[in-house]
Amino acid sequence: MPGLKVVVIGGGSSYTPELIDGFIRRAAELPTAEICLVDIPDGQKKVRIVADLARRMVDKAGLATEITISFDRQAALSGADFVVTQFRVGGLDARARDERFPLPYGVLGQETTGPGGFAKALRTMPVILAICRDMAACCPDAWLINFTNPAGLITETVLKHSRIKCIGLCNVPIHMKMNIAKLLEADPHDIFIDFAGLNHLVWGRTVWHKGIDVTAGVLDKMLDGAALTMKNIPNLKWDGDFLKSLGMLPCPYHRYYYMTDDMLAEEQAAAAPGGGGTRAEVVKKVEERLFQLYQDPQLAEKPAELEKRGGAYYSDAAVSLISAIFNDKREIHTVNTSNRGAISDLPDDCVIETNCVIGKNGALPLTVGKLPPELAGLVQHVKAYEILAVEAGVRGDRGKALQALANHPLVPSVGVAKQLLADLLKINAVYLPQFRD
Amino acid sequence: MPGLKVVVIGGGSSYTPELIDGFIRRAAELPTAEICLVDIPDGQKKVRIVADLARRMVDKAGLATEITISFDRQAALSGADFVVTQFRVGGLDARARDERFPLPYGVLGQETTGPGGFAKALRTMPVILAICRDMAACCPDAWLINFTNPAGLITETVLKHSRIKCIGLCNVPIHMKMNIAKLLEADPHDIFIDFAGLNHLVWGRTVWHKGIDVTAGVLDKMLDGAALTMKNIPNLKWDGDFLKSLGMLPCPYHRYYYMTDDMLAEEQAAAAPGGGGTRAEVVKKVEERLFQLYQDPQLAEKPAELEKRGGAYYSDAAVSLISAIFNDKREIHTVNTSNRGAISDLPDDCVIETNCVIGKNGALPLTVGKLPPELAGLVQHVKAYEILAVEAGVRGDRGKALQALANHPLVPSVGVAKQLLADLLKINAVYLPQFRD
Amino acid sequence: MPGLKVVVIGGGSSYTPELIDGFIRRAAELPTAEICLVDIPDGQKKVRIVADLARRMVDKAGLATEITISFDRQAALSGADFVVTQFRVGGLDARARDERFPLPYGVLGQETTGPGGFAKALRTMPVILAICRDMAACCPDAWLINFTNPAGLITETVLKHSRIKCIGLCNVPIHMKMNIAKLLEADPHDIFIDFAGLNHLVWGRTVWHKGIDVTAGVLDKMLDGAALTMKNIPNLKWDGDFLKSLGMLPCPYHRYYYMTDDMLAEEQAAAAPGGGGTRAEVVKKVEERLFQLYQDPQLAEKPAELEKRGGAYYSDAAVSLISAIFNDKREIHTVNTSNRGAISDLPDDCVIETNCVIGKNGALPLTVGKLPPELAGLVQHVKAYEILAVEAGVRGDRGKALQALANHPLVPSVGVAKQLLADLLKINAVYLPQFRD
Amino acid sequence: MPGLKVVVIGGGSSYTPELIDGFIRRAAELPTAEICLVDIPDGQKKVRIVADLARRMVDKAGLATEITISFDRQAALSGADFVVTQFRVGGLDARARDERFPLPYGVLGQETTGPGGFAKALRTMPVILAICRDMAACCPDAWLINFTNPAGLITETVLKHSRIKCIGLCNVPIHMKMNIAKLLEADPHDIFIDFAGLNHLVWGRTVWHKGIDVTAGVLDKMLDGAALTMKNIPNLKWDGDFLKSLGMLPCPYHRYYYMTDDMLAEEQAAAAPGGGGTRAEVVKKVEERLFQLYQDPQLAEKPAELEKRGGAYYSDAAVSLISAIFNDKREIHTVNTSNRGAISDLPDDCVIETNCVIGKNGALPLTVGKLPPELAGLVQHVKAYEILAVEAGVRGDRGKALQALANHPLVPSVGVAKQLLADLLKINAVYLPQFRD
Ligand SMILES: [Mn+2]
Ligand SMILES: [Mn+2]
Ligand SMILES: [Mn+2]
Ligand SMILES: [Mn+2]
Repeated sequence: MPGLKVVVIGGGSSYTPELIDGFIRRAAELPTAEICLVDIPDGQKKVRIVADLARRMVDKAGLATEITISFDRQAALSGADFVVTQFRVGGLDARARDERFPLPYGVLGQETTGPGGFAKALRTMPVILAICRDMAACCPDAWLINFTNPAGLITETVLKHSRIKCIGLCNVPIHMKMNIAKLLEADPHDIFIDFAGLNHLVWGRTVWHKGIDVTAGVLDKMLDGAALTMKNIPNLKWDGDFLKSLGMLPCPYHRYYYMTDDMLAEEQAAAAPGGGGTRAEVVKKVEERLFQLYQDPQLAEKPAELEKRGGAYYSDAAVSLISAIFNDKREIHTVNTSNRGAISDLPDDCVIETNCVIGKNGALPLTVGKLPPELAGLVQHVKAYEILAVEAGVRGDRGKALQALANHPLVPSVGVAKQLLADLLKINAVYLPQFRD
Repeated sequence: MPGLKVVVIGGGSSYTPELIDGFIRRAAELPTAEICLVDIPDGQKKVRIVADLARRMVDKAGLATEITISFDRQAALSGADFVVTQFRVGGLDARARDERFPLPYGVLGQETTGPGGFAKALRTMPVILAICRDMAACCPDAWLINFTNPAGLITETVLKHSRIKCIGLCNVPIHMKMNIAKLLEADPHDIFIDFAGLNHLVWGRTVWHKGIDVTAGVLDKMLDGAALTMKNIPNLKWDGDFLKSLGMLPCPYHRYYYMTDDMLAEEQAAAAPGGGGTRAEVVKKVEERLFQLYQDPQLAEKPAELEKRGGAYYSDAAVSLISAIFNDKREIHTVNTSNRGAISDLPDDCVIETNCVIGKNGALPLTVGKLPPELAGLVQHVKAYEILAVEAGVRGDRGKALQALANHPLVPSVGVAKQLLADLLKINAVYLPQFRD
Repeated sequence: MPGLKVVVIGGGSSYTPELIDGFIRRAAELPTAEICLVDIPDGQKKVRIVADLARRMVDKAGLATEITISFDRQAALSGADFVVTQFRVGGLDARARDERFPLPYGVLGQETTGPGGFAKALRTMPVILAICRDMAACCPDAWLINFTNPAGLITETVLKHSRIKCIGLCNVPIHMKMNIAKLLEADPHDIFIDFAGLNHLVWGRTVWHKGIDVTAGVLDKMLDGAALTMKNIPNLKWDGDFLKSLGMLPCPYHRYYYMTDDMLAEEQAAAAPGGGGTRAEVVKKVEERLFQLYQDPQLAEKPAELEKRGGAYYSDAAVSLISAIFNDKREIHTVNTSNRGAISDLPDDCVIETNCVIGKNGALPLTVGKLPPELAGLVQHVKAYEILAVEAGVRGDRGKALQALANHPLVPSVGVAKQLLADLLKINAVYLPQFRD
Repeated sequence: MPGLKVVVIGGGSSYTPELIDGFIRRAAELPTAEICLVDIPDGQKKVRIVADLARRMVDKAGLATEITISFDRQAALSGADFVVTQFRVGGLDARARDERFPLPYGVLGQETTGPGGFAKALRTMPVILAICRDMAACCPDAWLINFTNPAGLITETVLKHSRIKCIGLCNVPIHMKMNIAKLLEADPHDIFIDFAGLNHLVWGRTVWHKGIDVTAGVLDKMLDGAALTMKNIPNLKWDGDFLKSLGMLPCPYHRYYYMTDDMLAEEQAAAAPGGGGTRAEVVKKVEERLFQLYQDPQLAEKPAELEKRGGAYYSDAAVSLISAIFNDKREIHTVNTSNRGAISDLPDDCVIETNCVIGKNGALPLTVGKLPPELAGLVQHVKAYEILAVEAGVRGDRGKALQALANHPLVPSVGVAKQLLADLLKINAVYLPQFRD
């Protein structure tokens, strides 16, 4: 067996060393002949830095994996076994704009949730569908592992509008699991969480430790808020009465829905003159520092500073997923996949984030059934927004775009939705060919 | 046939002459032997005024219908054929408090929608279930026609927690139909609207005029806002792009969801010192005037001023519904009834507002099927709140009450939900036996 | 208003005078300018006889309705408002073959149920879809009222594979209703039956008389079997224990499923030498007699003998349906229409037979919801057969045809299904262009 | 850890050495302190023989597992971790009667399918529910692993009418998987089959070999019939056209539905004087021989002859399932469990046979979604029978029992259903306390 070809779209990302590290750690089970980093010409400098570091890492590990660079996507995709998408249309500058344009309306600015996530989705849809067309031509049997945010929406776009085999991935579920293991001082392998919901809106319905339901105890420990947060989300404390009456674990991103006012205040403070800047602006500085480190010819491993970037367990989630497919492991991962009836309260053809058995034949979701009303209402409302968002973004339909925003639980009125839509179409015009007349 | 016995719970309401007028106008098809006005001892003065006026009206019409008064509910219910509930626990004072307590949190204060409606629902549930127990004992085969708001929630309470035959009624759908007929200069009998949704959250999906789909034209005419408003709802204009992309008719109450910010501003202005007061405060003055008029021994018909009270078509909806049941007409009315699969996106056992065939065997909903995402998300979110609200209010469960409020689309955060809940439990303590320890 | 144009495909049928009689009786509410009888050239003689009788009937009634004949379907369809299909591909000879070919395998031979109905459906599908294409070109807004059997399957074919507005009609429900009225000595207008199921597999779930549930009493009266039978179905007695435990009214055709063995014995006796012949063979004689009568130039009304033909209430069902549409009556008829969620246990896009509100905008099914297991199992099994039958017949797919027959509850094994399929494809080869290689 | 206590109800079964063998082979992963064989006093002799053999087997394996015998069920259940039910109410004599009483009516006689299975289910329900009551009292947290046939129906009875944690198990799926592995000359671990359906009515929808869909190839190899049969089912050949158009793998028991006529002929021939006797009669001889062998004090392993008994892979299925629970393995087994939405076409609360992730928290079904019509019709029909059968058997309701039989696809008419019911109630009267007046 000659080994796998893995193509990374957005190869010049600062996350790539994390991913390379994952392939190195699982080299025994995952024979990787080539990792091809694809990027756009503008990203040339960064991708070369990353590729050089990757080569040093591979060498140090004594592996023969070839690290290549390509600016010709179709050529790169030929013969690919797995395609990982981690690109960001418009880069961190566009993300910073996503985080700022809703604030004047008193609306959350966030990369994946709310109007910012909608803008990012609209920018990404034409590109991801172009990648799918290239894959259909060059590697129709390859698996697309999508990390590009908003991961649920983009995976739904791919599964509804192409025939490419695609699984969407986010590090939130694994993050929750690992942190709960720490909270309980337990081996992560002994923890099983009944995850169900949407990307960045996923609940842990029950936490099992060695088959015992320990949910109530975990909720108690979550109350200080620190327990289950992530680098990129303000660490606001949970309310005890609320968690207890919910009886299930929200994910860190739920704060945008459950603590909207406080999260907005945090964002507004950060975005104000003299504040720390939005998350994208912080990340830009982290990235500059990272790329300086990456250029050090002595560096042959991912630097500790990478952890600040916020992608904990990213490589673990990605490479273990790829290995589960490649080795037909039929083990359970929490991924974004087509519903197919798993959650009875949502349409069959929409994308959900849930526990799936992963093997060579893809992701088979475990049955969730009906959700309790505490979860169903919010998740159905957000999914309605997502369905409208995919329709709007794929067809370039302004009416559907207005409906999408007006139906987002975080947008307070149709009037504000109209203004947000006008702003985002204007700010992102260069990235939105589908909305040009 | 000796004629029907109709019992009106909350008989001292200023609406009662409207209802009497309806029975008079349909006397030919609805032989009513007795209309018994039931009220609490505190309402003694008002109910006597109303009863006297009702007697003069009946006399003038040359009818033999007996108008009686009772403060003994069980005695009154014995032998009843129809029971109409139009009572208001706590009266207009409690309503005024419902309209005011959310405002300091920047949340809408409204009688039926949002935290105010939740408070009203909690106050009403113990009383309506006590009425149902009395009906089960005294008139188990009688029909309960529920007007008490929030009509959907209260009807759901009755249908889930008693075996009484109940239909919930609101004048919004008939109001929309009559206004559309005016807009189109058409005979109302030639208009058919595919209504579907929840009480005060009902959409006209398609408007048919003599079998022709005229929805787009109606939407055009609605744009000036005046067209389809109601007396009790600020008359804000609809956005043209929004209505066009929605492609369906919102009801007047949808403004609370679609124009939340502007509606809140209206309310805050009205509630501020020097403003006109909240709707309840306005209505109190209207009521005072009405009761002065009612006392005029020369008055033998409903006065024109009653129209200001906001209940247009109220008697028409109520009495024509009662007649459709009594005469087994199998004609279509838009009412609140158990879903039973009519709207596929909502639970079978919840209450919806939709077109039903009405006959002696009750309300048979027409099939709605799946809703488009533009409607589904909001309606599912509100229904999740309603399901939680019924669980909370029937069992007196504070955790479910917090979940209900936190899952209401108009409540911005769990933190605000907690404060609203604390406030409403305190303000309404005397009316909430189920929440006492 | 110039009056309606009604086109009758299969106009030379012996049923046509019944239909004409219906139009005459409802002339006041249904101004019909022209009734155009369309037939194939082979049917020329019969259609002329029928048209002449129809003209005499119309004249006698003092109406101006023009009776025309056409052998050019497209020309006839131009300007049509309603198209009624009552044709029979292959005529009574083909029907007789349908009734005979399953008998040697110990399988029921019947015009609409079982392998005979399957053969008839396969013959009819190419023709009905050609009619739909002609309608799309010549009268795209006309309503297709389909009587052609198997009416449910053919209506499902039209609704799945064309865009023509179509309602399928059968006289079984009205027959049941009228007979029950007779049984109860009640006015038919006071009877309401909760029908639900499929064509020729429809149950009356509850019988209401003036709003009172009288189902149990009707079941008692049904026990002698005579009560609810039809001319064309052997009149076998129902079992009392069975009806009582079912608690719902089967339709006369249910005997093919519930009394399969006895019905088969009846058929085999009739088909044996010296027996009375199959139903088609009996009907042929009735028809000969009818056409002799029809030729009598003195005859100006439908002859009493027509009742033996088995189409009682046929014209009533048809013309009152057309009038309900034309006059936007929104009254309830029991018809075949797209499910759309009305029966939760069946696919949304399949055709069911159920109570619908009929108006100018078509048929709106009343909500049925979930069926009890006593009904669900059989109806789901038969519907699976029907779905496969439509797929098989439209695409000419032998594999699907085998699956259809093998999944029919009346076919005892795959081996027999294969033989039946081979036989029917051979016998009907001339009518099955879609199965030619 | 002191080791597990496993209680085997029906411990005197000839299958027990198979089960003991399984525990021995998995002793490393499953520390079993005690296996308690429970039986009724009548089975005393057999259970002692089996226990002695089991002790010799355990000794030979060098294990400390204690083999105990009990005739006091409650005492035996105290402290149990797993309860395995493999009892047979009425023994092989009752089974023989089940196999014979339908034959005179031309209806299949079979232990689990059709009227024979219905009789067995009715006999078993009172006993299994009594066991559940004992478990609730003595070992409420123990798992019930139900092998008692009809395994799906009995598991549904337990899950609907008790709170005991229960998984139903059958060796058909593992048998199919192992045989397919042999057919493909593949390692069973590389085979994954998308099983879905009901017990003894389960289809392999897709067969994956190392992630490649090999279903079509497997269907080709199945055509000779020998491939996937089982010891206890006549080995009739499959029809190639049928399998190809089905495109999925039937299970061996599907022959009773797909080849009803030929299977009936086989049974009638076997049951006739001079035939080989029914399966139960054959098994009785096999069992006699087995118990002779078991008494050999030199025998310390399961004898080769046991394979003739028909329970291939029985111990493998059972013990690997118990180990997956005990060790929280989260690996996939094909078991009988509550649907909960896994198969969209069936009620949420019924029992299905499908792939589940098995861990300490039980069986989580993989999502199946909607079945194609080729499967849906038959499986829905049989499930309707099963739902009625559980209602009939638990409540002792003769009306429901008649409906159950009349709705079974293998019962040709209501008339035959009535006779079958009368016969089975009479023959089994001693075992059917619930049907006594
Ligand atoms: Mn993420
Ligand atoms: Mn209202
Ligand atoms: Mn018919
Ligand atoms: Mn089995």
